[in-house]
Amino acid sequence: MPVKRQKWSEDFGEWFRDVLINAGIMDYRYPIKGSGVWMPYGFKIRRNVLQILRDLLDNTGHDETLFPLLIPETSLAQEAAHGKSFEGECFWVTHGGFERLKVRYALRPTSETVIAPMLKLWIRSHADLPMKLYQVVNVFRHETKATRPIIRMREVSTFKEAHTCHATSKEAEEQVNEAVGLYKRFFDDVGVPYCVSRRPEWDKFAGALYTIAFDMLCPDGRVLQIGTVHNLGQNFAKAFNITYETKDGSQEHIWTTSYGISGRGIAAVLIAHGDDNGIVLPPKIAPIQVAIVPVPYKGKEKEVNKACIDVASKLKDAGYRVELDLRAELTPGNKFYYWELRGVPIRIEIGPRDLANGVVTIVRRDTFKKQTWTMDDVVAAVQTFAEEITNDLKANAETWMRERVYRVNSLAEAKTLLKRKAGIVEVPCCGKDKCGHSLEETVEARLLGFPEDITEKVDGKCVVCGEQAVNVVRVALAY
Amino acid sequence: MPVKRQKWSEDFGEWFRDVLINAGIMDYRYPIKGSGVWMPYGFKIRRNVLQILRDLLDNTGHDETLFPLLIPETSLAQEAAHGKSFEGECFWVTHGGFERLKVRYALRPTSETVIAPMLKLWIRSHADLPMKLYQVVNVFRHETKATRPIIRMREVSTFKEAHTCHATSKEAEEQVNEAVGLYKRFFDDVGVPYCVSRRPEWDKFAGALYTIAFDMLCPDGRVLQIGTVHNLGQNFAKAFNITYETKDGSQEHIWTTSYGISGRGIAAVLIAHGDDNGIVLPPKIAPIQVAIVPVPYKGKEKEVNKACIDVASKLKDAGYRVELDLRAELTPGNKFYYWELRGVPIRIEIGPRDLANGVVTIVRRDTFKKQTWTMDDVVAAVQTFAEEITNDLKANAETWMRERVYRVNSLAEAKTLLKRKAGIVEVPCCGKDKCGHSLEETVEARLLGFPEDITEKVDGKCVVCGEQAVNVVRVALAY
Repeated sequence: MPVKRQKWSEDFGEWFRDVLINAGIMDYRYPIKGSGVWMPYGFKIRRNVLQILRDLLDNTGHDETLFPLLIPETSLAQEAAHGKSFEGECFWVTHGGFERLKVRYALRPTSETVIAPMLKLWIRSHADLPMKLYQVVNVFRHETKATRPIIRMREVSTFKEAHTCHATSKEAEEQVNEAVGLYKRFFDDVGVPYCVSRRPEWDKFAGALYTIAFDMLCPDGRVLQIGTVHNLGQNFAKAFNITYETKDGSQEHIWTTSYGISGRGIAAVLIAHGDDNGIVLPPKIAPIQVAIVPVPYKGKEKEVNKACIDVASKLKDAGYRVELDLRAELTPGNKFYYWELRGVPIRIEIGPRDLANGVVTIVRRDTFKKQTWTMDDVVAAVQTFAEEITNDLKANAETWMRERVYRVNSLAEAKTLLKRKAGIVEVPCCGKDKCGHSLEETVEARLLGFPEDITEKVDGKCVVCGEQAVNVVRVALAY
Repeated sequence: MPVKRQKWSEDFGEWFRDVLINAGIMDYRYPIKGSGVWMPYGFKIRRNVLQILRDLLDNTGHDETLFPLLIPETSLAQEAAHGKSFEGECFWVTHGGFERLKVRYALRPTSETVIAPMLKLWIRSHADLPMKLYQVVNVFRHETKATRPIIRMREVSTFKEAHTCHATSKEAEEQVNEAVGLYKRFFDDVGVPYCVSRRPEWDKFAGALYTIAFDMLCPDGRVLQIGTVHNLGQNFAKAFNITYETKDGSQEHIWTTSYGISGRGIAAVLIAHGDDNGIVLPPKIAPIQVAIVPVPYKGKEKEVNKACIDVASKLKDAGYRVELDLRAELTPGNKFYYWELRGVPIRIEIGPRDLANGVVTIVRRDTFKKQTWTMDDVVAAVQTFAEEITNDLKANAETWMRERVYRVNSLAEAKTLLKRKAGIVEVPCCGKDKCGHSLEETVEARLLGFPEDITEKVDGKCVVCGEQAVNVVRVALAY
């Protein structure tokens, strides 16, 4: 049965807002604009998603830490480009109790300038390098654009940011590659397809040498930036005078990188796999992997419930996260709807007829395909279904996006595609800033940058100036 | 060998500051007073301690959530007593970018007034109750007292706060009992001894009916409040007009409680078991449970290292968190010192002689007692040692505190004991506020309140007014 995705694609913004609150993920009605509440079910999804990120980082020599929220204005301004860029975007603390503070504090918009003064204390010699730290915190931006739940918040309540220090430029570069690799593994693991692009000069992180970004395509044809990796060179090291003693005894500035994934890393999963019935969760991050719903028939309630309890207990013993839904006040139909909305990947129904035949009915959330299995094989069946769902979600999302990446050779074609919100458009470009700006203006979309995930170079002419292109660049409507 | 605890007890403040930074737990040199950094090793301790708390709460029907940081001034003031109490203690955000905000935002000092407006949206009927939520967040107080790492911060970067809603006063009361029980289990689990006392009226949480607090005794004879449980009655429900429909269709205000443990819950463990050599961690929360140190002899390095690798691998397979310290630039003595400072509960040494005899030397961090065991039994030995350390740490800390709880019948005796920082003093009291205040003034200490953890009532005369006492009250020097 093909899954209807009309609402999902036709009014994606409304779909997302509704699903977040109706599925108990985020309530966005807090009395401060751009602030939301992670509700119990949403929090459990967040926990599972973050666990994947934490495992990836912990297993590659990153240490989790926790740095302060507040940044003295003087620190924020210390790296000039960084300070200038964030000054107008920060929330400012000016008073402690009834006292005016001597120096204002910014609520961190990101933590490079929080971490730098500590690195200066911690790093003495080459033996202290590399140093790879991360933290999961809230960050703040006084957004002037329209805010959207999870996607554009003033309090970004989930931000995983890593900060690394190295002895050489080459090692910093290698770290950027490791980070890109880690983020690929993360998004692959949750089945979210992405493009990796090197942002143009004017769109890089303030204070970076360059920025590599992950973008996903949303159902409305806009891209959402879901992860960024920055090579900061020696910019912050010089601004904060962070040096180390080399093996030959001289003092050198360190080289740093930073990379982050925000709550958008969670939103990405909800968006990539959703449909008109709600969200669809890959089993690995689903707080509930199997919902068991009895379909009782008068006089058979007791036996049916008992069979459900047995199946639940078998699956729990096998390590699955199971919810046994014995609520008396809801019909089976209500329960189906309830668990579909919440994206529980597998539903098991047991009715009197199933009972008589010694079988259960297993329903996939992604395709709604039903299958009966003998009760004895229920654990094996769930394992098979879980694997199929994981693979199919990923493959379908990947296909869906790849069908919406267009490679064309003229501005006119690019413009037409973007006008009808077709997806991501790749056009040959010479790489000059001037042509990039001109491209953005002509097609009225954002230049995502040169691909970092396509190895073969494109031999073509720049769609703006007609000179030899160095590669295609990507353009798309963007959030 | 008796463990020396001179520095620990004679200059506890300095001991604590030094140990936090030297053991890599918290760096307190951040450029904002009262803000600290959880360093990698400290963060791992924090993770393990919080996991115990999370498990206790998750297993008793509490749902983890995440609420916003910022509170509109109007919300904070909505419950009068609460607003008045916190107004002068909050950090205030007044600007977003270059714009002045219409309503100032407080950085949460605690989250009752953050959660209340959401409860109003979420709670409709008795079927929504009870609701038991918690979150682990940072909270802020513009402390005017001297700040101290972890113990008194302006940014309290670790605050586990639970908030519950109930249909009746009785259920709220029962929840307070459950919370006290959970906190007892938590502190028992990490081997921290405590007193549980009901705070006097003037020292209860602002907005509460009453507050029950956990206090521990620090080596310098002062008590540290390490957990609090508040019955909020209908105060916040009425201030925010949070009602529910009862079974008979009428509208009633809900009853709420809140209870919290801050970073002090982690500090408590470090303080309770520390000694002059550093911290001592109970195995359950130790990031590294066993440190393995080769004691090589010229020409035997290879064999010794190999034996260490074998032992490490056996212990890892058995589920222990093991660090194999093969650093070439440090002597075994340096390594012993390094792991002792960091409180690793068990050290295994292997030298050429051990190797020849097929044994290992196992050293307990808490007593420094050494024992040799055959290499084949190393897993069983570590298990035995870990259990003994866990039990002994708890028992010794308990004995240490109990020896410093005094019950006396006169103000003069109480005053003398407190003057020499002897510990916690219990004196009979009639319970009148007037006598409580007078007691505090006379003995120059803090009234902790009537015990909640002593069931038998004391038959005596109030040390202040001489009337019939209702029970003893506790007084102590306090942080």
